[in-house]
Amino acid sequence: MNISADFLQRLTSALGPASVITDGPDLEPYSVDWRRLFPGTPACVVRPSSTAQVAHIVQVCREAGVPLVPQGGNTGLAGGAVPDPSGTQVVLSLNRMAAVRNVDAVGMTIEAEAGCILKVAQDAASAVGRLLPISLAAEGSATIGGVVAANAGGVNVLRYGMTRSLVLGLEVVLPDGTVANGLRRLRKDNAGYDWKQLFIGSEGTLGIVTAAILRLLPRPKHSVTALLSVADPAAALRLLALAQDELGDQISAFELISATSMQLVAKHAGLKAPIAQGDWFVLIEAASSLPGLREAAEAMLGAAFEQEIALDGVIAESGAQAAQLWALREHVTESEAREGKSVKHDVSVPLTEVPRFLDEAGEALAAGAPGTRVNAFGHLGDGNIHYNVLVDAGQDAGVVNRIVHDVVAAFGGSISAEHGIGQYRVGELARYRAQTELDLARKLKRALDPDGLLNPGKVLSP
Amino acid sequence: MNISADFLQRLTSALGPASVITDGPDLEPYSVDWRRLFPGTPACVVRPSSTAQVAHIVQVCREAGVPLVPQGGNTGLAGGAVPDPSGTQVVLSLNRMAAVRNVDAVGMTIEAEAGCILKVAQDAASAVGRLLPISLAAEGSATIGGVVAANAGGVNVLRYGMTRSLVLGLEVVLPDGTVANGLRRLRKDNAGYDWKQLFIGSEGTLGIVTAAILRLLPRPKHSVTALLSVADPAAALRLLALAQDELGDQISAFELISATSMQLVAKHAGLKAPIAQGDWFVLIEAASSLPGLREAAEAMLGAAFEQEIALDGVIAESGAQAAQLWALREHVTESEAREGKSVKHDVSVPLTEVPRFLDEAGEALAAGAPGTRVNAFGHLGDGNIHYNVLVDAGQDAGVVNRIVHDVVAAFGGSISAEHGIGQYRVGELARYRAQTELDLARKLKRALDPDGLLNPGKVLSP
Repeated sequence: MNISADFLQRLTSALGPASVITDGPDLEPYSVDWRRLFPGTPACVVRPSSTAQVAHIVQVCREAGVPLVPQGGNTGLAGGAVPDPSGTQVVLSLNRMAAVRNVDAVGMTIEAEAGCILKVAQDAASAVGRLLPISLAAEGSATIGGVVAANAGGVNVLRYGMTRSLVLGLEVVLPDGTVANGLRRLRKDNAGYDWKQLFIGSEGTLGIVTAAILRLLPRPKHSVTALLSVADPAAALRLLALAQDELGDQISAFELISATSMQLVAKHAGLKAPIAQGDWFVLIEAASSLPGLREAAEAMLGAAFEQEIALDGVIAESGAQAAQLWALREHVTESEAREGKSVKHDVSVPLTEVPRFLDEAGEALAAGAPGTRVNAFGHLGDGNIHYNVLVDAGQDAGVVNRIVHDVVAAFGGSISAEHGIGQYRVGELARYRAQTELDLARKLKRALDPDGLLNPGKVLSP
Repeated sequence: MNISADFLQRLTSALGPASVITDGPDLEPYSVDWRRLFPGTPACVVRPSSTAQVAHIVQVCREAGVPLVPQGGNTGLAGGAVPDPSGTQVVLSLNRMAAVRNVDAVGMTIEAEAGCILKVAQDAASAVGRLLPISLAAEGSATIGGVVAANAGGVNVLRYGMTRSLVLGLEVVLPDGTVANGLRRLRKDNAGYDWKQLFIGSEGTLGIVTAAILRLLPRPKHSVTALLSVADPAAALRLLALAQDELGDQISAFELISATSMQLVAKHAGLKAPIAQGDWFVLIEAASSLPGLREAAEAMLGAAFEQEIALDGVIAESGAQAAQLWALREHVTESEAREGKSVKHDVSVPLTEVPRFLDEAGEALAAGAPGTRVNAFGHLGDGNIHYNVLVDAGQDAGVVNRIVHDVVAAFGGSISAEHGIGQYRVGELARYRAQTELDLARKLKRALDPDGLLNPGKVLSP
């Protein structure tokens, strides 16, 4: 514990001793991310129960020059919410600020505190017949504050956008200890700078999100799920165009799964696609309040066969069958882990470039990292591919990263489509992003956090 | 012309004499907004043809300490794109940078230069079967750069969001003369701060938008338009809830029209609603790629009658009939102008508070500005009411503003839902927004534009 007794005394007298954790074992859950890839050592952990307490902690830390790391559900994939190993950083956990404050079914909004579990907020929306469409694997642990700070993606982005598109209002404690209260329940507000945008997706480096108001959507009454096999990613794109024509904006997921992914799922999870094997698979889900959805989906499937875009395909006849089709997609990551070591990439390229990207990345890996195997899958409808590379134990992950990211950069893509930068991709961001953009980011950071005390070493290199 | 010959020489040598306007009559279209409410006097007008030229102009102005006012189609409603009367500000018109650079039907993106007319971009999207859903009265003159800088709203916000939700990539010339190129054609990009958000809706005070990549949507195949009469705004809200249940997110417009608005349209435009008169009217439009839309609309109408929410109603039987229904809504503003002087407000409140807001604002006006008449209409589905007040010639507009905005503030609303702040509402914003938020805005302005040369006097008070 590399902080002074006086500093600790100031924290405990403000929060009460139960809200300040300094002992070894109790610190553990706050010290490392859930995948245990980014271990750190906090000076201590503080657990405020109100926005005023958060502001007070920020002030105390600022006066003492102690860095702060905000933390939600600790489910991030880039180590953005854990302290470094120095033992000098205070972890500020929002997990005691967990209330759903308000749900408005007609106005279609929900207000929740930063530490509210995503699933709890989803359920609160469901209870009044509305949909909070942020849906991701970690939804049982991820928090609203973390989801906002990370601008989380998930499986519904194609239809509903990233988290950013759902944020109506935000309350943020700024690095100077003041509270910016933008908890407005408004769908339209062009009065002055929309400053809340700065804090969405900046991973706790510019301010600490303490509460949010999110937009809800009508809950679709009907849904349809289909799995199709296609010859190649170009055919998958033609299928997407067809689906857009037939189903319009009611498509909620358009997932690409490679044959390798399907083989891994068969091998390790014992699940098999109920259609003839192809080299690539597409899982489509659409949902609507209107009747006629299934009719449109059948028309799409018919056209896909007639135009020889799809090799085989099935539409789920029940919710159970739909769940079976989704299970194939959902078991890819776990099956990959059972297969062995892999180097993961969460990349995006312009949608129509996905086929060429897959070709060129494959060729580059064959040349530069022979013996590796590609396990590609992901959100084709968003141009977002989880381009994971199965490697031998001896393979240098950095070499594989460089090969893949160089191809991504050549296509004008992003090295982090939805997982963020955290501590994991700081170096890669500095390498691939233009200097003007990095300078602009630093200018914003300096303007808001001149002493660099908020989540240092994340997103931007020190 | 209050600029030095040397400064003018530097501009003309860089751009060519044809791109620098210094003569009286040619300056006129750039000196005042289209409604002629905010007359100004530019030092000169520059018309660059490339991003490099824009950057050069910014550098020349910066070195000379000359303020710059970026201008698009000059259709703003708050005087945000015109110079002040001092004769010291250079107007930078983007109207020569008007190209549509790229339309991608499958990737559903369009890239256009800042000066591209909105209607031209809409048509380019239509030509490939896609929809650019920004739709507003000024679309034949408004430009993409202006629409982005203003975060324009319009009639489709309920379904597709404000302009912000459609911006994928942006190129911006910063106040220091550097170019931030974020023209990425990506639907998902969580690599670093999403700095482009800062420039959307900041009305040219933080940077000059030179090009944008916008998201396109599938073009719905079917549409349905209905006009219903209801007893009061609370019934209109119940109708909205019913429409959300039956039509889901396929509702593209939900417009409230008061009996006063309808009477003005009958008197001055000779148009009459084809249903029994009520105190309030709702115009609903829904559109979808799915069959079954009309069936759902009829179910909604049936339920609205059965639950005694609607007094009368009609569903358009043809495109021509739909246009006749829309004409009622579209003639409100013009009819109001013919009736006499009015004080306009573009306000929003939480959706479910609209009925109470209308009651309380009406009472406050009756008490504080007796003899005035309210002409309320607008986008109820967004909580955005154009709350216009018909006044005698002698009425002080400031008094009416204050009465209405005080009620808006009491409901946690916005004094500018979609029209922005410009020069018109600078004082009102300073009055109603919290100091922490104003401080934060100023901090951002200072960080990017320390000399305050970009569109001074707009959004923030000097």
